[in-house]
Amino acid sequence: MKEIAAAIAASFAALGASIGNGLVISKTMESMARQPEISGDLRATMFIGVGLIEAVPIIAIAIAFVILFV
Amino acid sequence: MKEIAAAIAASFAALGASIGNGLVISKTMESMARQPEISGDLRATMFIGVGLIEAVPIIAIAIAFVILFV
Amino acid sequence: MKEIAAAIAASFAALGASIGNGLVISKTMESMARQPEISGDLRATMFIGVGLIEAVPIIAIAIAFVILFV
Amino acid sequence: MKEIAAAIAASFAALGASIGNGLVISKTMESMARQPEISGDLRATMFIGVGLIEAVPIIAIAIAFVILFV
Amino acid sequence: MKEIAAAIAASFAALGASIGNGLVISKTMESMARQPEISGDLRATMFIGVGLIEAVPIIAIAIAFVILFV
Amino acid sequence: MKEIAAAIAASFAALGASIGNGLVISKTMESMARQPEISGDLRATMFIGVGLIEAVPIIAIAIAFVILFV
Amino acid sequence: MKEIAAAIAASFAALGASIGNGLVISKTMESMARQPEISGDLRATMFIGVGLIEAVPIIAIAIAFVILFV
Amino acid sequence: MKEIAAAIAASFAALGASIGNGLVISKTMESMARQPEISGDLRATMFIGVGLIEAVPIIAIAIAFVILFV
Amino acid sequence: MKEIAAAIAASFAALGASIGNGLVISKTMESMARQPEISGDLRATMFIGVGLIEAVPIIAIAIAFVILFV
Amino acid sequence: MKEIAAAIAASFAALGASIGNGLVISKTMESMARQPEISGDLRATMFIGVGLIEAVPIIAIAIAFVILFV
Amino acid sequence: MKEIAAAIAASFAALGASIGNGLVISKTMESMARQPEISGDLRATMFIGVGLIEAVPIIAIAIAFVILFV
Amino acid sequence: MKEIAAAIAASFAALGASIGNGLVISKTMESMARQPEISGDLRATMFIGVGLIEAVPIIAIAIAFVILFV
Amino acid sequence: MKEIAAAIAASFAALGASIGNGLVISKTMESMARQPEISGDLRATMFIGVGLIEAVPIIAIAIAFVILFV
Amino acid sequence: MKEIAAAIAASFAALGASIGNGLVISKTMESMARQPEISGDLRATMFIGVGLIEAVPIIAIAIAFVILFV
Repeated sequence: MKEIAAAIAASFAALGASIGNGLVISKTMESMARQPEISGDLRATMFIGVGLIEAVPIIAIAIAFVILFV
Repeated sequence: MKEIAAAIAASFAALGASIGNGLVISKTMESMARQPEISGDLRATMFIGVGLIEAVPIIAIAIAFVILFV
Repeated sequence: MKEIAAAIAASFAALGASIGNGLVISKTMESMARQPEISGDLRATMFIGVGLIEAVPIIAIAIAFVILFV
Repeated sequence: MKEIAAAIAASFAALGASIGNGLVISKTMESMARQPEISGDLRATMFIGVGLIEAVPIIAIAIAFVILFV
Repeated sequence: MKEIAAAIAASFAALGASIGNGLVISKTMESMARQPEISGDLRATMFIGVGLIEAVPIIAIAIAFVILFV
Repeated sequence: MKEIAAAIAASFAALGASIGNGLVISKTMESMARQPEISGDLRATMFIGVGLIEAVPIIAIAIAFVILFV
Repeated sequence: MKEIAAAIAASFAALGASIGNGLVISKTMESMARQPEISGDLRATMFIGVGLIEAVPIIAIAIAFVILFV
Repeated sequence: MKEIAAAIAASFAALGASIGNGLVISKTMESMARQPEISGDLRATMFIGVGLIEAVPIIAIAIAFVILFV
Repeated sequence: MKEIAAAIAASFAALGASIGNGLVISKTMESMARQPEISGDLRATMFIGVGLIEAVPIIAIAIAFVILFV
Repeated sequence: MKEIAAAIAASFAALGASIGNGLVISKTMESMARQPEISGDLRATMFIGVGLIEAVPIIAIAIAFVILFV
Repeated sequence: MKEIAAAIAASFAALGASIGNGLVISKTMESMARQPEISGDLRATMFIGVGLIEAVPIIAIAIAFVILFV
Repeated sequence: MKEIAAAIAASFAALGASIGNGLVISKTMESMARQPEISGDLRATMFIGVGLIEAVPIIAIAIAFVILFV
Repeated sequence: MKEIAAAIAASFAALGASIGNGLVISKTMESMARQPEISGDLRATMFIGVGLIEAVPIIAIAIAFVILFV
Repeated sequence: MKEIAAAIAASFAALGASIGNGLVISKTMESMARQPEISGDLRATMFIGVGLIEAVPIIAIAIAFVILFV
């Protein structure tokens, strides 16, 4: 049962982070094409945004490791 | 059974937070590209918004840890 | 069985609050970019709205704690 | 079984109220940005609307407490 | 089994009423912003509409109480 | 088993009636804002429409009571 | 088992009839607001349409009663 | 088991017929509002269309009766 | 078990045929309102199309009868 | 178990063929209304298309008969 | 169990092929109505496309026959 | 159990390949109708794209055969 | 149980890779039709993109083989 | 049970990464076609974005291997 629990936590973390990141980065592409002169500013915000999005999934990944090894 | 419960709580927290953050940050990108002169104001609101969104998922993560270790 | 019940309550509370907050805050971004001169008014309404949205999920979180410890 | 029942009632109440409130408050934002001169009127209607929306979920929360303690 | 039945009835009542009310009240906001001079008429219709929408969910709530206590 | 059956009938009746009514009343709002001079006519049709929509859900509610008490 | 069967038949009948009627009546509203001079003709067609839509759900309701009492 | 089978057949028949009829009749409304001079022709086609749509669901209703009584 | 199998075959046949016919006939309405001078041609194609769509669901209905009586 | 298998194969074949045919024939209607002078060419392609779409569902129907009688 | 497996393979093959073919052929219709002078070229590409789409479902059908008879 | 596993692998491979191919080939049609002078180039890219899409489903089909015969 | 696990891994890998590739290649078609003069550049990026998308599904396929044979 | 867990983790990782990458790379195509002069900049951001998206799925893949071999 521990393996199933770790797999559920890891898979939803991967799914959530991928969709969230996909939304942000694709919007960054679109905004860069619309206003190329602020592409540096947009890319900096993109890195911050990806970091903020991946905060909770990384904890879920940590919980998956905790479930597996503790 | 405790592991499954912790995994459910953690995975939905990750899913919810990722989708919510993805919506907010991608809209921030779009707004920055439309009005670059208030990008600082938008980015500040983005940080507040991400903090407000992650409030309830973080509690759900806490509940997952409580379920695992208590 | 108590753990599963607490996890269900916490996870749907996190999911609901994240989606609701995401809708509100992303619309705030869009409105600030359209009319920057009332951004203070919009941000104040955003705080009220986030508070109103999180009312019921916070009670669901409380119910999760009640289920776990009582 | 009582815990699962209370968790179902509380989680759907939280989900419903969050989505309903999210729709109303995000539309309020959009309307305030379109017509800033009636923002007071809109915000008053928003408070009434949130109150009306949360009527039934609050009863569902009450039912959850009744299931837990009675 | 009685608790599960009451929880199902209450949760779908809350979900339905929230979505229905959310649709109506958000459209009221939008209409008020488009034609502010008939906002009183719109708000009166909104109250009638919310009352009509909540008729069947309130009966479902009553059924939930009947299931719990009878 | 009788309680679950009554809860299913009541909850889908509430869900269906809320969504149907929500569609009709929100369209009434929109139409009133577009043509305010026939708002009386629209509101009269709205009452008839709500009555027609709630016909079948009310019978489902009656079936729920029949299941519970007969 | 008879109660569950009757509840399924009644609930899907209510759901189907509500959605179908909601589509028709909301389109009637929209059409009346677009061409007010043929509102009588539209309302007559609306009554016929609602009658035609409710034909099969009423038979499903009848089947639910047959399941319950025969 | 016979009751459940009859209920499934009847409920999907009601759901399908309602959605199909709702699509056709709501389009009829819209077309009548766009070209009022051929409303008689449209209404005639509507009756034929409703008859054609209800052919298969009526057979499914017949199968439900056959399952119940044979 | 035979009854359930027949009910599944009949209900999906009804659902599929209703949705397919609904799509075709509602498009016919729309096309007739856009070009009334070829309404005879459109209606003829509609009858052919409905016949072609109902071919496979009628065979599924036949399979349902075969399951019931053979 | 053989009856359930045949019913699944037949019902998904009916569902798939109906949706596919519905898409093709409704587009044919729309295209005929847009360019009436090539309606013969469109109708010929429609017959070919319906034949190509129904190829695989007919084999699935054949598999259903094979399951039932072999 | 072999019958259920064959039915699943056949039904998803039918569903997939129908939806894929429906998409392609309906787009062919639309393109032929927009540029009638290259209708021969479009129809040739349509035959190739339908053949390419049906490659994998036909193998799935073959697997269904292998499951049934081997 | 081996048959069910092979059927799942084959059916999802067919579903995925059909949807992916359907998207690509229908876009090819649309692009050919918009720019007929590069239709040869588009058709060449279409063949490459279909080959790339079918790579992974073909491996899934191979896995289905491996499950069945090894 | 090993066969079911390998089938799940292979089928979701095929589904994911097909949808992802379908999105990318259909956008490539659309972009080539809009700007034919950079079609070589677009096709090169398409090959890189398809390679990047298929990275994780290929590992899932590898895991399916590992599950089957190890 | 270990195989099922590894398969779930690997399949959702593949599904999530494919969808996320598909969104990003298809937007890159679209942006390159709209502004060909910054195609190098867009492609560089695309590589970074794909790397960021695949971070969490790769960990999920690692968890799948850990479940299988540890």
